[in-house]
Amino acid sequence: MNILILSAGTRNKIVQYFKKAINGKGNVIATDCSNLAPAIYDADKYYIVPRMTDNGYIDVIFDICKKESIDGVLSLIDPELSLLAENESKFNELGVKVIGSSYELCEMSLDKIEMFKWLTSHNYNCAKSYMDKEEFYNDLENGNISFPVFVKPARGSASISISKVYDKETVEILFAHDDGLMIQEFLDGQEIGADVYIDMISHEVVSIFTKKKIKMRAGETDKAVSFKEAKLFDLIERFVKESGFNAQIDIDIFEINGEYYISEVNPRFGGGYPHAYESGSDHMSLIVNNILGNANNKQIGNYRENTYMMKYNELKVIDGTK
Amino acid sequence: MNILILSAGTRNKIVQYFKKAINGKGNVIATDCSNLAPAIYDADKYYIVPRMTDNGYIDVIFDICKKESIDGVLSLIDPELSLLAENESKFNELGVKVIGSSYELCEMSLDKIEMFKWLTSHNYNCAKSYMDKEEFYNDLENGNISFPVFVKPARGSASISISKVYDKETVEILFAHDDGLMIQEFLDGQEIGADVYIDMISHEVVSIFTKKKIKMRAGETDKAVSFKEAKLFDLIERFVKESGFNAQIDIDIFEINGEYYISEVNPRFGGGYPHAYESGSDHMSLIVNNILGNANNKQIGNYRENTYMMKYNELKVIDGTK
Repeated sequence: MNILILSAGTRNKIVQYFKKAINGKGNVIATDCSNLAPAIYDADKYYIVPRMTDNGYIDVIFDICKKESIDGVLSLIDPELSLLAENESKFNELGVKVIGSSYELCEMSLDKIEMFKWLTSHNYNCAKSYMDKEEFYNDLENGNISFPVFVKPARGSASISISKVYDKETVEILFAHDDGLMIQEFLDGQEIGADVYIDMISHEVVSIFTKKKIKMRAGETDKAVSFKEAKLFDLIERFVKESGFNAQIDIDIFEINGEYYISEVNPRFGGGYPHAYESGSDHMSLIVNNILGNANNKQIGNYRENTYMMKYNELKVIDGTK
Repeated sequence: MNILILSAGTRNKIVQYFKKAINGKGNVIATDCSNLAPAIYDADKYYIVPRMTDNGYIDVIFDICKKESIDGVLSLIDPELSLLAENESKFNELGVKVIGSSYELCEMSLDKIEMFKWLTSHNYNCAKSYMDKEEFYNDLENGNISFPVFVKPARGSASISISKVYDKETVEILFAHDDGLMIQEFLDGQEIGADVYIDMISHEVVSIFTKKKIKMRAGETDKAVSFKEAKLFDLIERFVKESGFNAQIDIDIFEINGEYYISEVNPRFGGGYPHAYESGSDHMSLIVNNILGNANNKQIGNYRENTYMMKYNELKVIDGTK
């Protein structure tokens, strides 16, 4: 069993957990376009590859798959998820399973407006979202929304270029300076993260881990606490069934007065996944099991409740060539 | 040999390194005002203490020193350094060595204008700095400085509230909104970090580690590479001799066209120290040796050159009480 992790970056824990799941019965291979990506040094073997946007990138990945007899491939960065989905049949021809969701769902996850349309048309609570500022002004007048709101790129991640806006003038200035902006309702509630595994054989949700976020820094969760709530598990199961996501996903949710609002979906291992793993939700073993041809049993909520996660800096030091 | 680390926060590596240096022949005790400070869980024992600014805080620390037979105390946060220095004689009465610099030097390190005055009066290259914007406008007219410049609080840390400013109008707006701001020349060069240990017995500089910073994020160094340069070591030795800093310090330096500019001094273990340790500059052992009453031999530049440091997220997960 050989697993290929693309764009491993600083995600050392993901590499380490896959190595544990494989337990010496195969290799974990990692790639990155930089040799200063610490996670590659935790893999059994690594390749420095071109940038994902370079011509011929995917062929380099196919070559690695052949050479290393890869059984399953996944990526840890958003822009690469659609690329893997697009090339799924070619990977399959090489005997490689793409651990991820369909092209359409990867694309929808990147586009906050498309996601908003889908969520509202399927009756999920979510933040009101507008590409058209006149439409927003109308709702403002009708009392359907109020300041503050977020102005952000419709396609974007990691809290880049997000402004919290308190008046029309600022909306006008921001829209005059940038294209592709949207206006999003400010949800003032408890932020929640869910790490979900959808079995790649049975297509059932087999594992859900949920946590309340305690402290954020630069778009990342620094501290969080795990919890369990049947109503939230039910919502997530329904959402996955109706949307069709596959394998590992990470969902950002807000809880406001006992109601859950779906904010964002990342169809990959999120930055906060290690909390799930360390609390007992080992999704790497579920993946390995799937690749071996076995469906996993449902184990929703099968983790330690009330565990507190705190991040700190670890480092990888390598000797450079003179 | 028992060491007390105050305000341990997320500095797990510092706690771990002290434990290695003591090697079972004593305890490393850590404190923090929060039980979500991951570093305390790496210590042999920890105490949750009041906030540093609360009445009676220092007495709580004295009590811990007595109860745990502490031999040496240090803090990992800036505002606490002066407090330890101020209370040095009381710590000494309890048989506790304060691992740090004098009160005056701790205070000077926190004040960018005082530091600037000291550096210029001792003929060190450094960024031109102004509390008085009219003085800055004069220098601007005389061609002694040019935009862009930084506008930042004269007392502040971790890149909080720093603006890069390109025109007079913005300087005026910022100064109208905030007190205690200063204008600082923008040094456009290679950023360098130095981790320095000044022997607490011989008062000689015994260890210097220097690195070039490669990638910064939110005021922290994410990636760096170690190097050695005799001219820089000489500058640092002269600076320490003339200023009188003691024990562990961290210096931020810029290199511009072969000249070194001193930017900032933190009289404590800096966030980037683990790179020094992992490259061979073990300052924890130097501290332990000093507390045992032994002076250390000079070992300046005694570390591996060309080591690359890359940070990644590690996590501590603890089970909360129900």
